[in-house]
Amino acid sequence: MNRKIGPNQSQRFTKPPEDSEQLNPEPLKLFKNKEIREQVLLGLHQKSVLSANDFSAEQITELVKFAASLESLEISKAHPLDGKIAITAFFEASTRTRCSFESAVLRLDGKIISIPEGSTTGVKKGESLEDVGEMFNAYGDLVIMRHTATDAIARIRQGLRLPIINAGNGTGEHPTQALADWYALIKWRPALIDPDAALSLKLGILGTPGSMRAVKSFLLMALKFRDKIDSVTFISEMADPLGDEIKEAIRSAGIDYTVSNDMGKHLPELDVIYMNSIVCVGENYTAMDSSYKLNKDSPLKEGAVILHPLARLDELDRSLDDSPHNLYFSQAHGAVFIRQALLICILGRLNTMPREVPLVP
Amino acid sequence: MNRKIGPNQSQRFTKPPEDSEQLNPEPLKLFKNKEIREQVLLGLHQKSVLSANDFSAEQITELVKFAASLESLEISKAHPLDGKIAITAFFEASTRTRCSFESAVLRLDGKIISIPEGSTTGVKKGESLEDVGEMFNAYGDLVIMRHTATDAIARIRQGLRLPIINAGNGTGEHPTQALADWYALIKWRPALIDPDAALSLKLGILGTPGSMRAVKSFLLMALKFRDKIDSVTFISEMADPLGDEIKEAIRSAGIDYTVSNDMGKHLPELDVIYMNSIVCVGENYTAMDSSYKLNKDSPLKEGAVILHPLARLDELDRSLDDSPHNLYFSQAHGAVFIRQALLICILGRLNTMPREVPLVP
Amino acid sequence: MNRKIGPNQSQRFTKPPEDSEQLNPEPLKLFKNKEIREQVLLGLHQKSVLSANDFSAEQITELVKFAASLESLEISKAHPLDGKIAITAFFEASTRTRCSFESAVLRLDGKIISIPEGSTTGVKKGESLEDVGEMFNAYGDLVIMRHTATDAIARIRQGLRLPIINAGNGTGEHPTQALADWYALIKWRPALIDPDAALSLKLGILGTPGSMRAVKSFLLMALKFRDKIDSVTFISEMADPLGDEIKEAIRSAGIDYTVSNDMGKHLPELDVIYMNSIVCVGENYTAMDSSYKLNKDSPLKEGAVILHPLARLDELDRSLDDSPHNLYFSQAHGAVFIRQALLICILGRLNTMPREVPLVP
Repeated sequence: MNRKIGPNQSQRFTKPPEDSEQLNPEPLKLFKNKEIREQVLLGLHQKSVLSANDFSAEQITELVKFAASLESLEISKAHPLDGKIAITAFFEASTRTRCSFESAVLRLDGKIISIPEGSTTGVKKGESLEDVGEMFNAYGDLVIMRHTATDAIARIRQGLRLPIINAGNGTGEHPTQALADWYALIKWRPALIDPDAALSLKLGILGTPGSMRAVKSFLLMALKFRDKIDSVTFISEMADPLGDEIKEAIRSAGIDYTVSNDMGKHLPELDVIYMNSIVCVGENYTAMDSSYKLNKDSPLKEGAVILHPLARLDELDRSLDDSPHNLYFSQAHGAVFIRQALLICILGRLNTMPREVPLVP
Repeated sequence: MNRKIGPNQSQRFTKPPEDSEQLNPEPLKLFKNKEIREQVLLGLHQKSVLSANDFSAEQITELVKFAASLESLEISKAHPLDGKIAITAFFEASTRTRCSFESAVLRLDGKIISIPEGSTTGVKKGESLEDVGEMFNAYGDLVIMRHTATDAIARIRQGLRLPIINAGNGTGEHPTQALADWYALIKWRPALIDPDAALSLKLGILGTPGSMRAVKSFLLMALKFRDKIDSVTFISEMADPLGDEIKEAIRSAGIDYTVSNDMGKHLPELDVIYMNSIVCVGENYTAMDSSYKLNKDSPLKEGAVILHPLARLDELDRSLDDSPHNLYFSQAHGAVFIRQALLICILGRLNTMPREVPLVP
Repeated sequence: MNRKIGPNQSQRFTKPPEDSEQLNPEPLKLFKNKEIREQVLLGLHQKSVLSANDFSAEQITELVKFAASLESLEISKAHPLDGKIAITAFFEASTRTRCSFESAVLRLDGKIISIPEGSTTGVKKGESLEDVGEMFNAYGDLVIMRHTATDAIARIRQGLRLPIINAGNGTGEHPTQALADWYALIKWRPALIDPDAALSLKLGILGTPGSMRAVKSFLLMALKFRDKIDSVTFISEMADPLGDEIKEAIRSAGIDYTVSNDMGKHLPELDVIYMNSIVCVGENYTAMDSSYKLNKDSPLKEGAVILHPLARLDELDRSLDDSPHNLYFSQAHGAVFIRQALLICILGRLNTMPREVPLVP
């Protein structure tokens, strides 16, 4: 197999899984229109990212193309984040997300002040998040925060004058996870961002968007692509896995949706299955809806793909890892690049990009 | 308002609080004599900092002017700490202080080995601090340590041949917090370091220097400026909030002091109020003297300023944040610069300073 | 005393202990044959290090000479690990080893993503180590992992395509500690790597290789130098401190060994004493065999040396620190350099070395 692969990918995929050509092609070659509209991305300068709704469809589209450039080209010599400090404030611990952001920053030559576990902080002393925000103003250029409390982002912003990226707030949102999800999906179906292409995807969600922040952000971002989405099927043991806010959002987007507890019935129709068995309840994690399990013998539609923000228990069997349904590894790997794209925009360093990156005014 | 602001400040104060001109002016313009006497600062090379008493009034004066330069000028291109590694060993957790030091080091292009919570170390295995010191010799160029035990600094120094900065030891001291306190105060009243200027400040301390290390270091450093200080009033519910050592130090400095439990009576006379409700007792924190609370309706003298090393509970109401009494945000922001000044001196990198920094032999 | 000392050493040994000339001479001058055979070291490129047995005697020899170069010469301007990210994943906490690796990486201008305590990770959520490995592929260039579970390395490798260095796995091994041990010993007796020199060392081990990973790796590496070793004496209170695997390894190496519980009888004969009183049992540490204690009055042979991977309790008295028997400080200090040598080889950066490093094809 004559795989053409960009320099940033080469390291990651020295031992590519089967069908990697389909799941991990050279990203920049995917898109009919490779040109990145700089004007759209400039709108993200110094912006905070709290919700998937903070992005327009246009911004997501340009971020995805920009991320594909970063994944395909070698841009480290541009030192895009030289002199910038990101504070990774994980008041709720997480390896995956913290390391993904720290890797993104370090590969761009930025620096990190890391708070790997917030319980090791003054918050233990009863300190208010407002004051923490006030202090962070002096320490860095950007805050990336995760917290067990849903209102934590709002509270810290009362003191904070730096941009902040919400990396997961209680049962709220996790918008950059949604960016990673849709980056993987758009690489899988570039038609999602091609206005001339017809597409009618059936999305399935195993889980509870009402209490799973990653699922919620995924869904809210899905609504930005309403023209390409036929329907959403929620498979959950709960009577109402959505809650009013999410139901209203889907309704206004004009997308059909179904709630069911019968996975077997719906699975063979779905093009995209989003899974996440873990839900954050206060300080702890609970497995939810874990009776819905997928393995290589599950009746998946041919060509269907599975997304999972990982940290899996047994709901997603490793027998699927080598199958063409596995889009979750691409989702995990791409997260670094879409986060790099976002960081460069927020920190105002698009001007450092080498000319190989196809930016147009 | 036509604020002139240095490049390092600009980021911090994009949305300045009211009266920021008074509280956060361009620091370098404050002083009649801007020239920094290099000879005085060279005396700090490879020195450890254990107590506020390790600094002479002269060294504090020059450090403050140097910090003002760093706050006003852009010196990052000088890469002052290039190739140097600071070990931030926080055997007692603290976001504020650890991040302040790490930011100071990273902005100067030094590197960090971070121990965000000492319980994650060999000390758990019963390892002696002496051996930890011995190991640190091989790993870095400077140790910045916080510990719950007051004798921890003395113990680690038995094995350590690198300079160490005490970032808080039990009920002992926190000398660089005192530097940050006095940096803020001297920017507020430059007359403090002007030998020709008359000044007679009434200091008030809400708290218990005998068991609050930040308060103790603040007070010991205050004694270096005895000529400019009229009196110190301690407001505390304790019969003896000072202890013999501190009483003796104040007496030898020849400064009047009063101990009282009546805040209302003394507040209207005070020029500077130092607050800190939190005291470290063993491994835990306790709120002390918290019946003394300040808010915007407190009978503060016009022009009086409040200092607080932050990590506040409810003793310092947020209604004061936007008032001209708020010097505690300046105190927090300036901490990074006074620590940078100290780090450059201890690590012997004054010679990297660009000519804009007004060093004189 | 006219000590000649390399630039990298100078900082560490500004206040050298007595007899430091013997214990810490300029390393590069020690060896008759200073030339480093690059071809041997190239064999380590992209290799994982799980066990002391992953190194041949030839590789250890060349690594030791390379480390001696790094300790003697100033190579930081070569920026050997520029652009490389090491992930230090300490699912079992350790200051000493984590900081030693991080210092090695930072001094070579590499970058670090630090997981100081693995309990702060998704593993808490029940996440599998296989998935952690999969994620790490996207984040860095090398993983350095410690874990309380002996099978952890094998598990993470199921998902990991980056090279991994085992920094201690349960009761398994700690191969880079063994490299540090033998680096210290070879600097003490360069004849160990001189094929023409006769040497017949009597090794003594206080402890239980069967359940002490550092002792086990030390012993397995000792067997690579079988021609220079007369015998090994194990002093332990346990009836069988070795276990079948280790006994078989010693037997096939053709080295005499004795197991005894009588320290006093054997001590005066031993040339090298390896101590380690701490054993990792599950998540906790236990002091074992601690009835065997050494101090300056112990009947040590003249010229004998003590090794201890530190984290000592009271089994190794500080009265020995200033004695010529103290090789454990050299062992601790040299660890940074032998780890640097290994990192440069694994990450393929031998080609960055300046010409002062005596590499030959």
